[in-house]
Amino acid sequence: MGETAEAVDADDVDELSLLTQPGREDDLQTFLLLLHPADVAELLAEAKGSTALTILSRVSPERAAELVSELEPADQERILGMVRPEQLGPILEQMDTDDAVDLLQELDEGTASQVLAQMPAEERREVSQLLAFDPASAGGLMQTELVKVPMAATVGSAIELARPDAAEFQIFSLFVVDDVGRYAGQVALQDLLFARPETPIERLMKPKPVEVQTDVDQEEVARLFDRYSLVELGVVDREGLLVGRITADDVHEVLVEEHGEDLLKMAGTWGEPEELYASSPWTVVGRRLPWLGATLIGGLAASLILMKGVLGMPEAGVLLAFVPLVISLASNVGAQSATIMIRGLALGRIDPAEIGAHLLKDLRVGAIMGTIVGALVALLLTVWRGRPTLGLAVGGALALAMATASLLGAVEPLLLRKLGADPALASGPLITSINDIGGVLIYTLLALALYGVP
Amino acid sequence: MGETAEAVDADDVDELSLLTQPGREDDLQTFLLLLHPADVAELLAEAKGSTALTILSRVSPERAAELVSELEPADQERILGMVRPEQLGPILEQMDTDDAVDLLQELDEGTASQVLAQMPAEERREVSQLLAFDPASAGGLMQTELVKVPMAATVGSAIELARPDAAEFQIFSLFVVDDVGRYAGQVALQDLLFARPETPIERLMKPKPVEVQTDVDQEEVARLFDRYSLVELGVVDREGLLVGRITADDVHEVLVEEHGEDLLKMAGTWGEPEELYASSPWTVVGRRLPWLGATLIGGLAASLILMKGVLGMPEAGVLLAFVPLVISLASNVGAQSATIMIRGLALGRIDPAEIGAHLLKDLRVGAIMGTIVGALVALLLTVWRGRPTLGLAVGGALALAMATASLLGAVEPLLLRKLGADPALASGPLITSINDIGGVLIYTLLALALYGVP
Repeated sequence: MGETAEAVDADDVDELSLLTQPGREDDLQTFLLLLHPADVAELLAEAKGSTALTILSRVSPERAAELVSELEPADQERILGMVRPEQLGPILEQMDTDDAVDLLQELDEGTASQVLAQMPAEERREVSQLLAFDPASAGGLMQTELVKVPMAATVGSAIELARPDAAEFQIFSLFVVDDVGRYAGQVALQDLLFARPETPIERLMKPKPVEVQTDVDQEEVARLFDRYSLVELGVVDREGLLVGRITADDVHEVLVEEHGEDLLKMAGTWGEPEELYASSPWTVVGRRLPWLGATLIGGLAASLILMKGVLGMPEAGVLLAFVPLVISLASNVGAQSATIMIRGLALGRIDPAEIGAHLLKDLRVGAIMGTIVGALVALLLTVWRGRPTLGLAVGGALALAMATASLLGAVEPLLLRKLGADPALASGPLITSINDIGGVLIYTLLALALYGVP
Repeated sequence: MGETAEAVDADDVDELSLLTQPGREDDLQTFLLLLHPADVAELLAEAKGSTALTILSRVSPERAAELVSELEPADQERILGMVRPEQLGPILEQMDTDDAVDLLQELDEGTASQVLAQMPAEERREVSQLLAFDPASAGGLMQTELVKVPMAATVGSAIELARPDAAEFQIFSLFVVDDVGRYAGQVALQDLLFARPETPIERLMKPKPVEVQTDVDQEEVARLFDRYSLVELGVVDREGLLVGRITADDVHEVLVEEHGEDLLKMAGTWGEPEELYASSPWTVVGRRLPWLGATLIGGLAASLILMKGVLGMPEAGVLLAFVPLVISLASNVGAQSATIMIRGLALGRIDPAEIGAHLLKDLRVGAIMGTIVGALVALLLTVWRGRPTLGLAVGGALALAMATASLLGAVEPLLLRKLGADPALASGPLITSINDIGGVLIYTLLALALYGVP
C-alpha cells in the first residue's frame, strides 16, 4: 500500500457513496475497517457533503474522532459546518486535545462555544486552557494526554497507572514528576518493558530531560526535536509544572507550515498565509500590495537616475534599451547569493567564523560570472551592431553589476539578521529594489565615464 | 534547559579543553555525563581538533558513537579525517547502521573502505548493502536495526526476542513477519506492555501496515509519515521482505533538506546543494551560471524589442528610462502569484477543481494592484513632469503588465507540473525572463499605440 502515490481513487469515492444507502450499513462498516483512517478521511473530503455527514453519523464517536482529526482544516470547516453542535460535542470529546483545539479554531466563534458547552466539564476545561495559547507556540501545539507518574512509583505501579490511558492515546514514554508536579524525568516504554516490576522508576528515568515552556515559538520547538532527535517533548509552565506534551507528528506539520510561510514571505507577501487564499480579491491585494511599494520606490529611483545621468548622451536610446538586461541579471545573481547565504546559515554549512571568506568567494563568483556574461555581450554588440563603445559600456556594467550584486546579495541576509529581522526577507522585493538601484547606478556611472557628461 | 536557544556556550568549550589535560580524566567523565550527547557534539564541533580527538579516545566506543552520530556532516568530515581507520571501526560498529552509512559517505573512498574492513563481517555486510542505495531513497534512509518477530510468537516470547535489542537501539514497535520474512503487521510497544504474556502476537498486531519499497524517493517517504502520522515505517524489498525501518527523526532531516533544496532551486541554481558551498569559486560558478543563460537570452530579447519598437519615438529616452519600473513590478507580481499557486497546490489550499476560479481571482488581484500603482505613477508624471501622454503610457503599461504578470505567474507552475517539471521552478530565472519579455512587449505596444509608429 505504501508505494502508491495515492491510496484512494475516484472509484472508491463512488463506492463509498453507494454504501451510504439504507440497508447497506454492514457493508459500509466492513469497507471502512479495511482502510486507514487517513485514507477514509481523504474519501470524505472528496465525497459529497451529504455522504460525509452520513458516514460520520454511522460510525462510533471514537472512529468519527479519528476521521475528523485526519481531515485537512479546509475540509473540517466545510464538512463540520453542516453538523449540529450537539453531535459534534461527543466527537470532540474523543479527539486528542491538540486536534480538538485545532478544530475549534476552524469553526466560527458561536458554533465553537456551543460545541464546547456539549463537552464534559473536565475536557472542556482542558480544551479551553489550550485555546488560550498562541497556536504557533509550544502551548498551542501540545496535547494534555500524557502518562504522569510520581517519582516514588515502581515499574509495576507505573504500568498500572498507565493502563487506562493505553486504550485512549499513543504512549512513547512515561513522564515522571516530583511531589509538586514539576517535570523530573522521562522513562522510555522500552525500558519499562524489560525491567522487573519492583524496580523503582527513579532508577530507570532519564533525569533532566529536554523540556520547553508553553510560550516558546514553534520554530524553536522544531529545532529541539531536530537537535535531540526527539519522539516527544514535555511542555512545562513558568513554574516548571508539567502541563502537556508535543509529539513528532505535530512537529512534522510545523516544518511544512514554516517552509510555506518562508516561501511566501520571500515572494513579498505579509500576514497569515490563509489570507492569501481568501475569496475576496481585496483581501489578497491588502497582503500583496504593501511590499510592491518598495519596488515602486526603487523603480522610480532607478528611472530618475537614468533620466538625470543617461538622457542626453549621444547613444542614450540604445544605452537605455539595454538596462533591462543589466537589471535582470544583477537581480538574479543577488537572489542566488542571498539564498545560498540564508540556507548556509540555517543549515550550518557556512561557519559564522568564516563569513569573511564566504563573502570574498561570493564576490569572486560574481566577478567571474559577470566577466563571462559581460564579455559575451560586449563581443555581441561589437560584432553585431559594430559599436565597441556600447559593447564596453553594457559588458562592463554587467561585469561590475553582477559582481556587486553577488556581494550585496550575500551581505543583506547578514545585515537583516543583525537588525533582528528574518534573513529570508533578503530575497524579497525590499532588497531586490536596492539591487536594482545599484545596478542602474553602476551602469549610469560607467556610461558617463565612457561617453562623457552630456 | 529546553528554553535556552543554545544549550552550550564558549565557556563550556574552554572548560572542555581544560578537562582534556592529563590527570583530569575523572572530571571529564563527570562533565560529559551531565550533558546530552547532542550538546557534547556541539562542543566538539567548536573545540580545537586535538581536543575533540582526545575526548573521542577517552570515552567508550558506545559513547563515541553517540557523539559522532550527533555531529554535523562537515564536522564529522573534519574531525574524523584525523582519526585512524582502526580507531574508527569500533566506533562505527556501535552506531546505528543509517548513521554509519551517512558517515562513510562523508569520508573519502580509501578511508571508507579501510574503516569498513575494521568492522565485524555481519555489520560490514549490512552497511555495505545500505551504501548501495540512493541516499535520497527509502533504502538510503533506513536502518537495519529493528525487532522482527514471527507471526506465531506470543507476547511473552516476543518480549524475550526483543530484550537483547533494547539496550542497543530505540524500539517503538515490533515488526511481525510471515514464514518467508514478508512484512505482515506491526505491534506498538504500548499494546505489548499491557497484554498478557500468553496472548498471540497475531491478535495484537495491526495487519496491512503502511510500508515502503527501498527505491521510493525520500519526498514520498516524508509524505507517508505526514499522511499517516507515523513514528516509524517498515521498508520492504521488491519481494515484500522486510529489510529495514525509517524513524521520524530521519524524516525530520529530510524535510529540512528538501526545504533548502526547494529554495536553492527557486533561486536559480542546480546540482547538489553542497557544491554551492564548495571552496572553489569555479565549482560554484558551474552551479549558478547556467540558469543565468535564460536571463541573458530574456534580457537580450527585451532589449531588442525596445530597440525595434521604442527607439526613434519622440520621447524614446524618457519612455526607456521607465522600463526598469515596469519590469521590476511585473516581475515581483509574477513571483507573488507563482509562489501562492505553488504553496496552494502543495498544501491543498487550492482545490484542483477550482483552479479556474483561482486564476480569475489572480488576474483580478493583478488588475487591481496594477490600476492602483499605474494611476499613481500616471498622476505623478502628469503633475511632476507635466507629461500626460508619458503618464498614460507608463501608468497604462504598469496596469496591463501587472495584471498579465499576475495571471502568468499563477499559470506557469500549472504548466510546469503538466510538463512533468517541478512547479517550484516557476519562481526561478527561466520564468522571470518570460515575464520580463511580456512586460516589455506590453510597454512597447502601448507606447506605439499612444505615440504612433516612429
